[in-house]
Amino acid sequence: MKAEIIPVGTEILLGNIIDTNSSFLASQLPLLGIDLYFISTVGDNQRRLVDTLRRAWSRADILITIGGLGPTQDDITREAISELVGEEPKVDEKLWQDLQELLRRYLGEVPKSNIKQATVIPSAHIIPNPIGTAPGWWVEKDNHIIIALPGPPDEMKLMWQENVVPKLKERVSGEVILSRTLKTFRLAEAKVDELLSFLSKQSNPTLATYINPDGVYLRITAKAKGKEEAARLISQSEEKIRSIIGANIWGVDDDTLGSVVGKLLQSRNLTLATMESCTDGLLGYTIAGTPESSAYFKGGMLACSAEAKITLGLDATLVKQHGEESAQVAEAMAEIARKSFKAEIGVGVGGTMNPTRNSGDAFISFSSEKSKHTFTHALLGNRSRMKQRAVYAALFDLRKILLEEVI
Amino acid sequence: MKAEIIPVGTEILLGNIIDTNSSFLASQLPLLGIDLYFISTVGDNQRRLVDTLRRAWSRADILITIGGLGPTQDDITREAISELVGEEPKVDEKLWQDLQELLRRYLGEVPKSNIKQATVIPSAHIIPNPIGTAPGWWVEKDNHIIIALPGPPDEMKLMWQENVVPKLKERVSGEVILSRTLKTFRLAEAKVDELLSFLSKQSNPTLATYINPDGVYLRITAKAKGKEEAARLISQSEEKIRSIIGANIWGVDDDTLGSVVGKLLQSRNLTLATMESCTDGLLGYTIAGTPESSAYFKGGMLACSAEAKITLGLDATLVKQHGEESAQVAEAMAEIARKSFKAEIGVGVGGTMNPTRNSGDAFISFSSEKSKHTFTHALLGNRSRMKQRAVYAALFDLRKILLEEVI
Repeated sequence: MKAEIIPVGTEILLGNIIDTNSSFLASQLPLLGIDLYFISTVGDNQRRLVDTLRRAWSRADILITIGGLGPTQDDITREAISELVGEEPKVDEKLWQDLQELLRRYLGEVPKSNIKQATVIPSAHIIPNPIGTAPGWWVEKDNHIIIALPGPPDEMKLMWQENVVPKLKERVSGEVILSRTLKTFRLAEAKVDELLSFLSKQSNPTLATYINPDGVYLRITAKAKGKEEAARLISQSEEKIRSIIGANIWGVDDDTLGSVVGKLLQSRNLTLATMESCTDGLLGYTIAGTPESSAYFKGGMLACSAEAKITLGLDATLVKQHGEESAQVAEAMAEIARKSFKAEIGVGVGGTMNPTRNSGDAFISFSSEKSKHTFTHALLGNRSRMKQRAVYAALFDLRKILLEEVI
Repeated sequence: MKAEIIPVGTEILLGNIIDTNSSFLASQLPLLGIDLYFISTVGDNQRRLVDTLRRAWSRADILITIGGLGPTQDDITREAISELVGEEPKVDEKLWQDLQELLRRYLGEVPKSNIKQATVIPSAHIIPNPIGTAPGWWVEKDNHIIIALPGPPDEMKLMWQENVVPKLKERVSGEVILSRTLKTFRLAEAKVDELLSFLSKQSNPTLATYINPDGVYLRITAKAKGKEEAARLISQSEEKIRSIIGANIWGVDDDTLGSVVGKLLQSRNLTLATMESCTDGLLGYTIAGTPESSAYFKGGMLACSAEAKITLGLDATLVKQHGEESAQVAEAMAEIARKSFKAEIGVGVGGTMNPTRNSGDAFISFSSEKSKHTFTHALLGNRSRMKQRAVYAALFDLRKILLEEVI
């Protein structure tokens, strides 16, 4: 079965928001064996939305709209679907009662315009929205399914998981498409492609490479009658790839550099603390946001100037001798982090960044009672990319020295 | 003139990456007076890409493809454009020389597959890529312009700004579309719509509302022959809106809560330091990432447990009496931040978060020599949304007490 995703909203076409919903849904469809060939984004214009829905109807079995279910006058998805299937929307009294109750509880009043959100057409079943005022629609007609979901990402995701997936599973039965992503660091995309060209030629599984902030990803995708067969095909390819570039692969699928480092720390019962300057606390934020990090991450410090570093305990002569951002200062910062938080490992991250030249250097240091390790890496890109690269480099380096058990 | 954006890549259709490029380009086009009605995303499949290009050709004057210009076998944008315009791509020897030099400098070798990136068709002019290996194409044929840009966001943006915008400005002359976004906090979308319904009915300027993590945004969009006339229309609407919901408006356009707070701090010559727990350092990261923050932001501390807070100076009896996450502990954290960094204002942010119930409370405290202010806010949503809301609430509260000069 084929699906088409139709994000609706002039705010997307004006670049006021980034459409993260499509990528979430896109990642979900293969798990149900549903193909996705097009994402067709359109603004809050009923005629263009109806045209887009008609084209999607002609080339897909399942149409998923996102957005345009709000209470305002430019929310036109309900109207467009009604026009597509030739039905008239009417207020559902039960739904309107529930909605009024919800509004009174959270807003203390019932704005009249919200009544739009309680309308339905005869072919539509309501998809409840447990955390918002916009219910979704599930429409089945003429061998097509239309699913209308609201735009706020957490509402959309919750409704998808709890209500849409179970209903879709009943309707869909076909080939399973499974994919597995191998994540590498410090390898160029063309190099990966050259090393693995013998795999790119086959049609099942397929291999695709693409660049991400945390390295080049390799996606192996297999189609098969069942999950087991697809998984077996993927494992075969994975084995071949690992035999060639294994050392650069740091994780698979949902692994993040943070979660990979976290598992290593937990397995060795070690705790961690950070002190950062040029990365603005992104390393600490990244680690703290990793599930279960409370087991090993004590905390972090962010010092935005030499003065602040000295206030937190840095020896001022180090700054004079080696410069505010230097390998020596990063090393001292790692020590300050370790001792301030009474952690086993301290990480210090500093660096120079020249955003006008799009380049800089990161100084990354790790300290424990046993040893010290300091790395310097060249950075490329704008300021936010350099910060991110420095954080990923720090995590990749930490993974390496933890694996080698030299710290 | 009308444009259509065509993001190319199976990684988008599999949900492996979030398409931020489209939103960037979408935000740029109105500045040139170019309308955008559709964003049509398609995978690495030449037939479907050619179909999508043909449809775009029939309804737009400018086609902008993003992605598919890499060196690998699934990069098919060059081939699809060649098929669309009926021309044959050939290696450009000068371009290939330059590319080989770049590859040798950065990779130390020249992967053979990169030669694809040095091919062009007769109608195409090369758009140089100063920070990557994928040059773009500018194709003019039969009153259409096709612009092919690479997928990595910083390469795409740099090429857009430096090369595409100047060329487009020469070609385009039409109505100017200007928009201005007013940003509010602590107002429900339906409420805004109701208060401003008299404005939603007019067709120029138009008013649209949408929800963002940092509040409800109001976008006023005006079309006119010249920039001045469009700006005048926008100002008229803005004035009316401010007379109704002025107190909730915290910024316009590129303003962020961080930049707004930063300006207030700078104007009063105050410095700031933070101490956080449940927000994982996101407040410090947000402030440090704001341009010019080095003038007022000293730094921050992140304590991931009660133990870590006590290590950093928290009185253990406070935790016993009021709980690890409480208004009293947040107040003490604000003091620790202020004193540790020798700043004028300290911010303490703690909170309880129950991700399974999608709810929690944020405790936000501000301290100076002069006064203390502590706020409690209910949080809704998943964990990352709650963290973000707490940070925005802290910045909105700080803006308020700075404006009122009570701190």
